[in-house]
Amino acid sequence: MAKESIETYLERLKPVIDKKIEEWIPRKYDEKSMTFTLGEPGYENSPKSATKSIAEPVWDFLDRGGKRWRPALTLLVAEAFGAKRSDVLDFVAIPEVIHNGTLIADDIEDSSDMRRGKPALHKIFGVDIAINASNVMYFLPLLVIGKNRKIPAETAKKLYDAVAQEMISVSFGQALDIIWHRGGAPETITEKKYLQMCAYKTGALSRMAAKIGAILADADENEVEEIAEFAECIGVAFQIQDDILNIAAGENLGKEFAEDIKEGKRTLLVIHTFEKADEKDAKRLMGILNTHTNDKKLLQEAINIIKKYDSIGYAKNYAKKIVENSWGRIDKTLAKSEAKERLRMFANFLIEREF
Amino acid sequence: MAKESIETYLERLKPVIDKKIEEWIPRKYDEKSMTFTLGEPGYENSPKSATKSIAEPVWDFLDRGGKRWRPALTLLVAEAFGAKRSDVLDFVAIPEVIHNGTLIADDIEDSSDMRRGKPALHKIFGVDIAINASNVMYFLPLLVIGKNRKIPAETAKKLYDAVAQEMISVSFGQALDIIWHRGGAPETITEKKYLQMCAYKTGALSRMAAKIGAILADADENEVEEIAEFAECIGVAFQIQDDILNIAAGENLGKEFAEDIKEGKRTLLVIHTFEKADEKDAKRLMGILNTHTNDKKLLQEAINIIKKYDSIGYAKNYAKKIVENSWGRIDKTLAKSEAKERLRMFANFLIEREF
Repeated sequence: MAKESIETYLERLKPVIDKKIEEWIPRKYDEKSMTFTLGEPGYENSPKSATKSIAEPVWDFLDRGGKRWRPALTLLVAEAFGAKRSDVLDFVAIPEVIHNGTLIADDIEDSSDMRRGKPALHKIFGVDIAINASNVMYFLPLLVIGKNRKIPAETAKKLYDAVAQEMISVSFGQALDIIWHRGGAPETITEKKYLQMCAYKTGALSRMAAKIGAILADADENEVEEIAEFAECIGVAFQIQDDILNIAAGENLGKEFAEDIKEGKRTLLVIHTFEKADEKDAKRLMGILNTHTNDKKLLQEAINIIKKYDSIGYAKNYAKKIVENSWGRIDKTLAKSEAKERLRMFANFLIEREF
Repeated sequence: MAKESIETYLERLKPVIDKKIEEWIPRKYDEKSMTFTLGEPGYENSPKSATKSIAEPVWDFLDRGGKRWRPALTLLVAEAFGAKRSDVLDFVAIPEVIHNGTLIADDIEDSSDMRRGKPALHKIFGVDIAINASNVMYFLPLLVIGKNRKIPAETAKKLYDAVAQEMISVSFGQALDIIWHRGGAPETITEKKYLQMCAYKTGALSRMAAKIGAILADADENEVEEIAEFAECIGVAFQIQDDILNIAAGENLGKEFAEDIKEGKRTLLVIHTFEKADEKDAKRLMGILNTHTNDKKLLQEAINIIKKYDSIGYAKNYAKKIVENSWGRIDKTLAKSEAKERLRMFANFLIEREF
């Protein structure tokens, strides 16, 4: 069992997680599920309209897949701190649905055309329905906390605190990313500032997933923070790996070729290149990033400059180092268990993936 | 003092509320306020970038005004249930900032050009920054709950539950409104279904404001629900009045002329007209609504049809009736107090306003 690969583990978990999500967000609304979700109506509900405007866009997006690694992280962390899976399973909807909600918003904000091999949600349902679906996905899974009668109020409060805090961090990360790739940063983007942005933008949801698991397992405040930091590190490493794949993997990601370059994103690759490149190369790269071009030749030229200064190797190494260091800390905190073993494999898996 | 008009009361309260909001969302981020908001950074924060991408758009919008009646409702309800204003004041940021966040999203969803006499936020800062500002405004004010050390966990949980529940309702209301004014409703929009949509879309934030006040005053579950229903009724009546003003008040609202008609919105006015109009008028009105026209002559023609069937009088009367009925219930629950007196004046004020 311990020899099972993380890929297999995630694949095995996925239908379990999706079934749980469906308990909180039905694929089709009827009177009963409307009342469950919204309370007794004072006038009269419109389940057909709610299906069309909420359930269909939300599930169109959720059904596109994704690895469901955040809810898996919630479960593994809870188990590693000694909780029973059955006590935690309801809560996996929170990090997963919220994460997907942020992706829908990201795609509108970045004017992305594609997501997971299909047109971005706003391209199918319109910007209005997509923004609104994104928003409701931040709150629908919180019904899991609101309707739970087993956990003490103290635990519920901690869960809500964690969600709110990490949602603030996500939004700050996204805000920095936006004004930086517009080319209008009011300060120099150093490596540290970039990594902090990643910690917010990508690390925060990973933190949220881990915190939820640890809080439900009654871990103490220090333990919760320690595992949150570990999760943040995997999130940051995951983002760095994402940046690398965006440039290195070509067109088979269900996203467009070199989208990050097109959007002018200041990734670790770009920042490192700026630090190492001669004036001519740096100027040229800056020029291509700031024009937000679609021209494949120019995009390839930018990639060549980045590769010339071995920024891919540097970033890969950096991601590995971050995860190693944070594992070192959590390794001492957690007792030996199968879940702990999986957490370790999990971190490696995320930074070594090629998809 | 009791003779003070609600207008004066709100004007007097506004700077107090705005100062409170500023304690939680600064106009300018520095290292200290970043750490307060996001926790200790693992790498390095970028306060200048956060100011430009979060504080500036958020305050650009908040500074445009608005009557701040939702936080006033929170205070009045809390006082009417016997709480001290000083114990509640921190929490007024929640309904007000969240409400403004939803307005920013609404404007993007409706492709509105103007809001409160200025270009819509996304017209100034871009759709990306505006969506993200809207999102962060749902969570930043929740720091008030997270950082509070005085209220018991049970109370904090109830507050969070109320926020999450009402945010879900708001999103459902918005979702119905969107697909209905697209002309693609998969069911007949009856008066009851319209009013339920209003209860979600406009009533829910009003409910949230009232619930927060009642929960902080330790009102019991039934009392909280009763005052929430009263608040919902003012919200619905407010929406009906808004619909009337959109049609009756001409161009001096800081919004465009007859925007609702242009957007094809199914308001109570429109639904009532459809119910009463002869076939020719009904068909003509439907035609104008579904073309989403900018033509002032056509918009005026639609308004004339609505007026012909006295739908404005009908809607005005309806709004009044809703508020009267719900006041009747809350009148028995609340003991006599100045706050109660003001609540009553407040409800009348909202449905009788001409701006």
